[in-house]
Amino acid sequence: MSERLIVIGGGGAGTAAATIAKRCNPDLRVTLFSEFPDIAYSPCGIPYAHGREIPEFQSLFLSTVRRYVEDGLDMRMETTITDVDLSRRTVTARNKHEGFDKLILCTGFVWEQPDVPGANLEGLHYVKDIRRAIEFDKELDQMRRAVVIGGMWLGVEMAGALARRGLDVQFIDEGPWLLSELVDPDVAEPAQEALEKLGVNVRMGTRLLGFEGSGDRVRAVSTSAGELECDVAVICLHKLPNTSLAATMGLELGTLGGVVVDDHMRSSASGVWAAGDVIEVPHGLSMLPITGLTGSHAYAQGRTAGANAAGEDRTYDPVWIPWGFMSGDYTIGGFSIGETLAEAMGIHYVVAKGVGVSRARYFPGAARTHVKLLAEPGTLRLIGGQLHGGEGIKERCDFLAFVAKRGATLEDLAWMENIYSPPIGALYEPIAIAAQNGLAEQQSRARQKVPA
Amino acid sequence: MSERLIVIGGGGAGTAAATIAKRCNPDLRVTLFSEFPDIAYSPCGIPYAHGREIPEFQSLFLSTVRRYVEDGLDMRMETTITDVDLSRRTVTARNKHEGFDKLILCTGFVWEQPDVPGANLEGLHYVKDIRRAIEFDKELDQMRRAVVIGGMWLGVEMAGALARRGLDVQFIDEGPWLLSELVDPDVAEPAQEALEKLGVNVRMGTRLLGFEGSGDRVRAVSTSAGELECDVAVICLHKLPNTSLAATMGLELGTLGGVVVDDHMRSSASGVWAAGDVIEVPHGLSMLPITGLTGSHAYAQGRTAGANAAGEDRTYDPVWIPWGFMSGDYTIGGFSIGETLAEAMGIHYVVAKGVGVSRARYFPGAARTHVKLLAEPGTLRLIGGQLHGGEGIKERCDFLAFVAKRGATLEDLAWMENIYSPPIGALYEPIAIAAQNGLAEQQSRARQKVPA
Repeated sequence: MSERLIVIGGGGAGTAAATIAKRCNPDLRVTLFSEFPDIAYSPCGIPYAHGREIPEFQSLFLSTVRRYVEDGLDMRMETTITDVDLSRRTVTARNKHEGFDKLILCTGFVWEQPDVPGANLEGLHYVKDIRRAIEFDKELDQMRRAVVIGGMWLGVEMAGALARRGLDVQFIDEGPWLLSELVDPDVAEPAQEALEKLGVNVRMGTRLLGFEGSGDRVRAVSTSAGELECDVAVICLHKLPNTSLAATMGLELGTLGGVVVDDHMRSSASGVWAAGDVIEVPHGLSMLPITGLTGSHAYAQGRTAGANAAGEDRTYDPVWIPWGFMSGDYTIGGFSIGETLAEAMGIHYVVAKGVGVSRARYFPGAARTHVKLLAEPGTLRLIGGQLHGGEGIKERCDFLAFVAKRGATLEDLAWMENIYSPPIGALYEPIAIAAQNGLAEQQSRARQKVPA
Repeated sequence: MSERLIVIGGGGAGTAAATIAKRCNPDLRVTLFSEFPDIAYSPCGIPYAHGREIPEFQSLFLSTVRRYVEDGLDMRMETTITDVDLSRRTVTARNKHEGFDKLILCTGFVWEQPDVPGANLEGLHYVKDIRRAIEFDKELDQMRRAVVIGGMWLGVEMAGALARRGLDVQFIDEGPWLLSELVDPDVAEPAQEALEKLGVNVRMGTRLLGFEGSGDRVRAVSTSAGELECDVAVICLHKLPNTSLAATMGLELGTLGGVVVDDHMRSSASGVWAAGDVIEVPHGLSMLPITGLTGSHAYAQGRTAGANAAGEDRTYDPVWIPWGFMSGDYTIGGFSIGETLAEAMGIHYVVAKGVGVSRARYFPGAARTHVKLLAEPGTLRLIGGQLHGGEGIKERCDFLAFVAKRGATLEDLAWMENIYSPPIGALYEPIAIAAQNGLAEQQSRARQKVPA
């Protein structure tokens, strides 16, 4: 009999794990369990469909269950695993036991719920399942006012999308500036302006106190800045590892509450891998654990887990986390850490800042691209950075994460070659401008004998 | 008395050299000689101004002679250096001698002229000086038909620009496909289609035989495909190092006819540096000399020469040449070498090819991005590549040139982290897709014991 692999979870990590496992070892019998009826859709696209930038929700479905079945996977949709017995090597679903040899846990995340009065009223919306999103989208036609409770980037995307949709949007966040856990204030500022340009009323430093109902349904959000009337409250707090199954299985959990895995995505239990939002992974700079990464990380982790469960030997490196998204019509991004996080972590750094343009400065469409790099004092090795504005933020952040991981210095970046062609690139690459400014600053400090 | 530096040439290399020398050593007396009246304009923007993508020629002027004078430079515009006496340390201009301690030669390039009958008729246009371009732009209003004689990328830009301007454009090139000296056929094909979409009649494999005149003025281009009537012939062949002064100075010239410099931009004569299109520099992969690089290379070389002439110790590395430009509305690019050049040079390689998208595939504006990477057999170290389509070609080619120089492998790129955010980046980075395909291909060959 061939070996049997069970994958729990049909999100990015689970589908990637199951697909790659089958591809690496076609003899493996691979079964995927998902609570949901749909597979391989893009949750990341949901805000843009609400905002009508993507015309149809249907386009977010990238594959079908049938396609996976044709690829040889046993797909158990709308089937919740209620128990895993590691000693007997069985899972329980719909009160039936199914045996496995190997298991990959990809149970994803649950949204942090606000611990305030009224948090179980109707009209509190969390962005996750696409079917619920499609229903919610219809409800939006009848709604006028939304309060978005922010914190993480989904809140920024949802606030922008609902404003584009024509709703009166209040965005509240307890932080001193937009996305203050991730983004530095100089980057948050233009991001906030871009949201406001779409008509979003951004209220920073505003604490959520509770939800006021009219009957069972929310009618207002009570905040430290007063009561904000609304037809819906969209809650976008932290993603938390969904470890309820992992806990019953006795898997080791880490300091952030995620499943602990090694560099092969192996959990603490033999023959059990885990991947995606349920795990924590080490940050490449600090080696401290981190959770709540992106869909591309979930896929990559799923592929690693799947390949290894199928007998390959694939490692997953600590992450340098290139990130980027649009706030309204403005792009911001970064990699590793920014100044705020560096200071919070007590990491010493020097800053290299510069402003360039995305095309020749006389070419229509050229936009300012702001680059801030953080480097280790002395060695000037890149340890993080944040960028905003212009074009090519995604590609630059991918680049910087890749080379930071491999020890690139400000010196390397200052003299990098770059393409100069008026419609696509300026004489000076914005990254090189920032690095050169940083080097000049260091030299000037060295001459003045001022410590960095 | 403070030292005296003379810079010959007011293009990118010369202005950068003079500016940086003065900045590094404010005591240095820096004099710049230029044959032309203008400084610091962008020749690269000229085709786009003809095509009216850039509304005004005036916007191509990025600075003024006065600004350089204010920065402390002695600017001698419209002044041709007719002789350099290295033993007496003098240059001759307007029959007067001027002494120098150090010299930087930035005499740029001259266009290759076709060696055919009629090559001195009026109506043969070369794109170089901006004042001539402004006059030519006025003449274009009276013209209907242009023949562009291609070969290098300026020809592609000019053909597209003149077609946008409403002219009937014939593009002829002797090569078997567009830009066959640089670009592989798979990349040339969509670039040619994009030109044709603008209405350019592209005639590849067509040899220039001569120019037919009506009186002193060109009336037709005689080609192996017949006579092509025209009001103007735009000639875009190779850039050749303008070494007439260098030769009289007895500077060592290289196999390509450019001034030989070391990694500090020092020529063979003591106290004489050279930079820009007049020199040849080693290619990072083959260490073979190369000429005819881009404006950003000229600037970088000029900065190196200027800093060193001012007493700094700055090196200029062998080049990995990220390149990119638009053919019509389509972007193509690359770095180092492509397959054609690898084969011509007898360099062994394996190919990694893939197609991704520039945004989430369901997001409006998403476009296919084709990536082809060349890697060294065995080590799988990146040695070159070519890309086309979509967005972010410039940033990706800059990235790839940077990491190829530092020894990145297909394995590194296959598992790179990337930003997935629907409006700016897809789940899978196109570079990673190509690298993964390449690795899979290598593994499959290894299993089949087929040599790469």
